[in-house]
Amino acid sequence: MHHAVKAEIITIGDEILFGHIVDTNTQWIGNELTAAGILPVRKTSVGDRAGDILTALKQAMEACEVVIVTGGLGPTKDDITKQVLCAFFETELAIHEEALAEVTAFFRHRGREMIESNRLQAALPRSCTYLANHWGTAPGMWFERDGKVLVSLPGVPFEMKNLMTEAVLPRLQAHFTLPVILHKTIRTVGIGESFLAERVSAWEDTLPEGVRLAYLPSFSGVKLRLTAYGEDRPQLMALLEEQVARVLPLIDTFVYGYDNTDIEEVIGNLLKAGKATLAVAESCTGGFVSYRTTTIPGASIYFMGGVISYSNAVKMRVLEVPEATLMTHGAVSEQTARAMAEGVRKHLDTTYGIATTGVAGPGGGTAEKPVGTVWIACAGPAGTTARLLKLGTLREVNIELTAMHVLNLLRETLLRDRQESR
Amino acid sequence: MHHAVKAEIITIGDEILFGHIVDTNTQWIGNELTAAGILPVRKTSVGDRAGDILTALKQAMEACEVVIVTGGLGPTKDDITKQVLCAFFETELAIHEEALAEVTAFFRHRGREMIESNRLQAALPRSCTYLANHWGTAPGMWFERDGKVLVSLPGVPFEMKNLMTEAVLPRLQAHFTLPVILHKTIRTVGIGESFLAERVSAWEDTLPEGVRLAYLPSFSGVKLRLTAYGEDRPQLMALLEEQVARVLPLIDTFVYGYDNTDIEEVIGNLLKAGKATLAVAESCTGGFVSYRTTTIPGASIYFMGGVISYSNAVKMRVLEVPEATLMTHGAVSEQTARAMAEGVRKHLDTTYGIATTGVAGPGGGTAEKPVGTVWIACAGPAGTTARLLKLGTLREVNIELTAMHVLNLLRETLLRDRQESR
Repeated sequence: MHHAVKAEIITIGDEILFGHIVDTNTQWIGNELTAAGILPVRKTSVGDRAGDILTALKQAMEACEVVIVTGGLGPTKDDITKQVLCAFFETELAIHEEALAEVTAFFRHRGREMIESNRLQAALPRSCTYLANHWGTAPGMWFERDGKVLVSLPGVPFEMKNLMTEAVLPRLQAHFTLPVILHKTIRTVGIGESFLAERVSAWEDTLPEGVRLAYLPSFSGVKLRLTAYGEDRPQLMALLEEQVARVLPLIDTFVYGYDNTDIEEVIGNLLKAGKATLAVAESCTGGFVSYRTTTIPGASIYFMGGVISYSNAVKMRVLEVPEATLMTHGAVSEQTARAMAEGVRKHLDTTYGIATTGVAGPGGGTAEKPVGTVWIACAGPAGTTARLLKLGTLREVNIELTAMHVLNLLRETLLRDRQESR
Repeated sequence: MHHAVKAEIITIGDEILFGHIVDTNTQWIGNELTAAGILPVRKTSVGDRAGDILTALKQAMEACEVVIVTGGLGPTKDDITKQVLCAFFETELAIHEEALAEVTAFFRHRGREMIESNRLQAALPRSCTYLANHWGTAPGMWFERDGKVLVSLPGVPFEMKNLMTEAVLPRLQAHFTLPVILHKTIRTVGIGESFLAERVSAWEDTLPEGVRLAYLPSFSGVKLRLTAYGEDRPQLMALLEEQVARVLPLIDTFVYGYDNTDIEEVIGNLLKAGKATLAVAESCTGGFVSYRTTTIPGASIYFMGGVISYSNAVKMRVLEVPEATLMTHGAVSEQTARAMAEGVRKHLDTTYGIATTGVAGPGGGTAEKPVGTVWIACAGPAGTTARLLKLGTLREVNIELTAMHVLNLLRETLLRDRQESR
């Protein structure tokens, strides 16, 4: 078996340490490195201070064969990564003609004037290999020392991603002899982490040596991730498939999909398979259910549209929820949820209609209907189902959980209808 | 001046390294520490391997006075943080009676059975101080050594946040004599990072010693963050205010707000001040504009609702976009955007209506209207304004940018209408 090629990801910028932005780059990089057979063992973020950056570079190059550095390459004065790289690799900055041509073309193409700080983005440490950035103004840089590799990339996510995909990953694959790391993720909904663990405990104890299990809990359910590590891709895939087949009977009522397949994609596939269409009526989720549904490219085949009926006037006027229903039972009630789902299904002329109405918080709660009280409904050819959710007090969490539950209610309805039509 | 109390944040879990989840915890912790006067200097993520965790703990406790560790405390077998903490602090695990009572009560309250793995969550290293977790089953732990503090918290975000707010931050403030760190962020929209830097360059060069500037670019515009560090809060605030007053004349047409005030909150305040209401018609953004509008608690005062007209049928039926408009100019056109904004304003009976229609991608582009072609419109008492956006090829980015632009168009319209009514 190969020795694993280990990687560290370093992000540079006070904004990450101070919490002014969420770092999504390292998630993406970790995913891509793993898929390429490189093992991320550490992630480090340091601020825009030369000493801290230098320490991080040293520790990373000691512990790992691959170091990916992002950030600190902007045209502004707080960005000092290139200066620190020069110190670390004992070299100096010089204008790189190819990089200068690229950045000049970038500005010409966009019809924008180029200023001195942009020109200086083409100054690179002499000892690096230049990686052309066709998507922005900060070039990528590739350094080698004792067979180890350090890559410095801009922090702008789509520039970093394009540079990684087009230049860095192919070069890493050429530079190292890489083993195979495979993951298989089983996605569940409707069961807590410890109960899932209890159900699969006996199976978990008998996992073979080369397979590791992790539990990944989130608002959208708990994922079980299996990881296998070795040389032979088909053999590892078979190993993972075998373990999935062993565990599935223990948990299959909770499993909605695998790997990167979100529930909205599962729903999209079920709708397409049944040549069915969907409309969404939202109150407390404010458009989030529709937005999630439309994150799937090609959703326009089955998603006709939605109505966000934040006010009672819109519930009555657009969704034809009877005024008497709102008066008697209130906007947050089983009757209103049903009328919304049926109204949007009828009015937008779709096979299915789903609806949410609730008290997301922080305000609006009463003794009878406290914050977290949510009704969801799904109307379809076989009738309407409604469900009461008793959630917590955090607005954002309540919106996320409500979306997950109403999408899962739709999934269950689609599966049941498919079963019955057979 | 005080010596700064430095902090490192360590997150534990393969899922973060492998990129299976986005880590939002450290952003939040970084923000809270900074606000409390503690300086985050480093963030480290390591996997579920004892050796890597131990190295991270050692390096952090050498470099910093405060170490916050999250994750690896779950009931499942892959979670080993407590074992490593025992090794690091040379102690052993023992059932903590108070923690056991808490976790027992947690399950009883929810009417759920308690299993052995849950009971073991109450086993804590003997040398730690127990921090009660009233929001979940994994307790917090507080360790001290040579005046330095290490805290271990569960990785579940709302449990971690509650423990930090209720227990950890007050204890840190009692344990250390903390200096004051103040930030002031100026939020801009409609100008790129390097052009903004060019405009403020002379001012930036004359910033006083104790003030640092950072540029934070994102889809929603570039933020300028000023940081001041010292002992006297009123003096630092005055220092920051003075610098804001100096830079503002150079960039004021691009500034929409400060600090944590998102554009949706700015819009909400303008709508409330003008006793005006809003409706949203969305095609390519699929509900995202409405969702962002409703992330502001109390949005129901001015946000009446929205229509997601993904299909032409919904555009015609619900928004009354004339069929001739769709036939002659297409769904992605100035005419359709105007008709959508006017239609939703009329149909939902609001002061303002905003609309988006475009080709978000990856499919659906033509030679005449390539992916990234988006029309936005804003209809109000003084008429309708439409704008063409030429965006890129990434679906998610296009949705984010479109939302930002249409909210900014509404903001400009609200400001202009307010001006004219005076």
